[in-house]
Amino acid sequence: MSAFQRATAVRRRDDSTYDVELDLGWSIGGRPNGGYLLAAIARAATDAAGRDHPLAVSGHFLRPPAGGPAEVRTEVVKSGRTVATVRATLWQDGQACLDALVTAGRLPDAAADHVGTPMPSLPPPEECRSRADTPFRVELLDNVDVRLDPATVPTAENAGAPLVRGWMALRDADLGDGSPADVLALLLAVDVAPPTVFRLGLVGWAPTVELSALLRAVPAPGWLAFEAEASVVAGGWFDENATVWDSTGRVVAQARQLALVGR
Amino acid sequence: MSAFQRATAVRRRDDSTYDVELDLGWSIGGRPNGGYLLAAIARAATDAAGRDHPLAVSGHFLRPPAGGPAEVRTEVVKSGRTVATVRATLWQDGQACLDALVTAGRLPDAAADHVGTPMPSLPPPEECRSRADTPFRVELLDNVDVRLDPATVPTAENAGAPLVRGWMALRDADLGDGSPADVLALLLAVDVAPPTVFRLGLVGWAPTVELSALLRAVPAPGWLAFEAEASVVAGGWFDENATVWDSTGRVVAQARQLALVGR
Repeated sequence: MSAFQRATAVRRRDDSTYDVELDLGWSIGGRPNGGYLLAAIARAATDAAGRDHPLAVSGHFLRPPAGGPAEVRTEVVKSGRTVATVRATLWQDGQACLDALVTAGRLPDAAADHVGTPMPSLPPPEECRSRADTPFRVELLDNVDVRLDPATVPTAENAGAPLVRGWMALRDADLGDGSPADVLALLLAVDVAPPTVFRLGLVGWAPTVELSALLRAVPAPGWLAFEAEASVVAGGWFDENATVWDSTGRVVAQARQLALVGR
Repeated sequence: MSAFQRATAVRRRDDSTYDVELDLGWSIGGRPNGGYLLAAIARAATDAAGRDHPLAVSGHFLRPPAGGPAEVRTEVVKSGRTVATVRATLWQDGQACLDALVTAGRLPDAAADHVGTPMPSLPPPEECRSRADTPFRVELLDNVDVRLDPATVPTAENAGAPLVRGWMALRDADLGDGSPADVLALLLAVDVAPPTVFRLGLVGWAPTVELSALLRAVPAPGWLAFEAEASVVAGGWFDENATVWDSTGRVVAQARQLALVGR
């Protein structure tokens, strides 16, 4: 079991409830990363559905949980031939922290018939810069190796369009760094870039309000490449569209989130 | 009240339940359009939340409802200062048909600080072609005027990348055609293009499994422009990313859906 699998492990308590131990090693400024929380909740939902993989995960963030014990309450709302849909809610101390809908099934093995978003060219990981956010401590980086394309590093000296590209790999004291990412780790990958609006000088805590992701294929071992880009920044809100490719160049995940500009 | 507002009207029955009359005038091949259903469910959820506008709407489609009476059961899961989040489920004949999470609040009036997706150039509506799908009757077109950029019309003679651009306006026998679209009509606009995979020769019934939309601004009166594009078509699944601009060129909605290739 990888460190990521341990940190997102869920233990079935009864027909519909799972226990989870939230690990602050996967947080930013003391608050668990949204992608990490989605991975844990999707793990419970996929198990409750009795399916292999989450296909579509929609998370609406209510309040940030603390580290420690929490539970995922699930309800299978439809179980069909091809997919099953589950509502899953993360609870802690009697409060709902994250509400999600997960449609689960089996990811196809087939090669793509069409790809409109080929992997962008970016320098190899060893020529990229480690993510290092200025305003907060990013505990997550102890567990996830994030390398940013120097051209898109979101610092004051590198202002530009709100686009960030880079690589992600899981760190693992036992299995070794770069231990293979499973499908659920893709939910981490779609939320692992620093907020792209930092490149517009809008630096600050940028909470995710909603994140919807599509998982498209089981990733091959190796580095995951990601690109995140904000399309519209207006009135204190921004969207961020993310695509993730595996080491073979295959699109493995797509997501869009709505977030508040940091203040 | 516009024809669209009448067709998506919800009547509060008690603290959490709304009655709705599903109108098959907004369907495709006898099944209500997904965007139409999302508009009705988001109208109930936004009312239950006591907010002005839906901001993020995630819908997971379980089974297509028939026309006629249905109900939306809502549950406000969090009501905060800036936003409220509501779970809303469309029920008919004792079966859940569509499960949604809606985060509602107030759309900003502010001009955008950044726009990465300017409105593409496309011919004016009078030089575009009315949508006319071949395999099914599209009842929706009696109520919605959809004009497609001739360069992207998804016919066998016009094979190409799975991208469709066009215009949308509401028809209205009483108020006149082109009656202003409200924010909820944007949920129709993100799902009004014919399936983009028709341009790859993959013509057939292409059911939406999941659709998540962000509403970004109240649309100005006039035609809405839309662009829909599939990024990855693999193993019988495709995604479709949609952007909608109002008549002033402002981005008013963004969405991505997961759908099955028609068979």
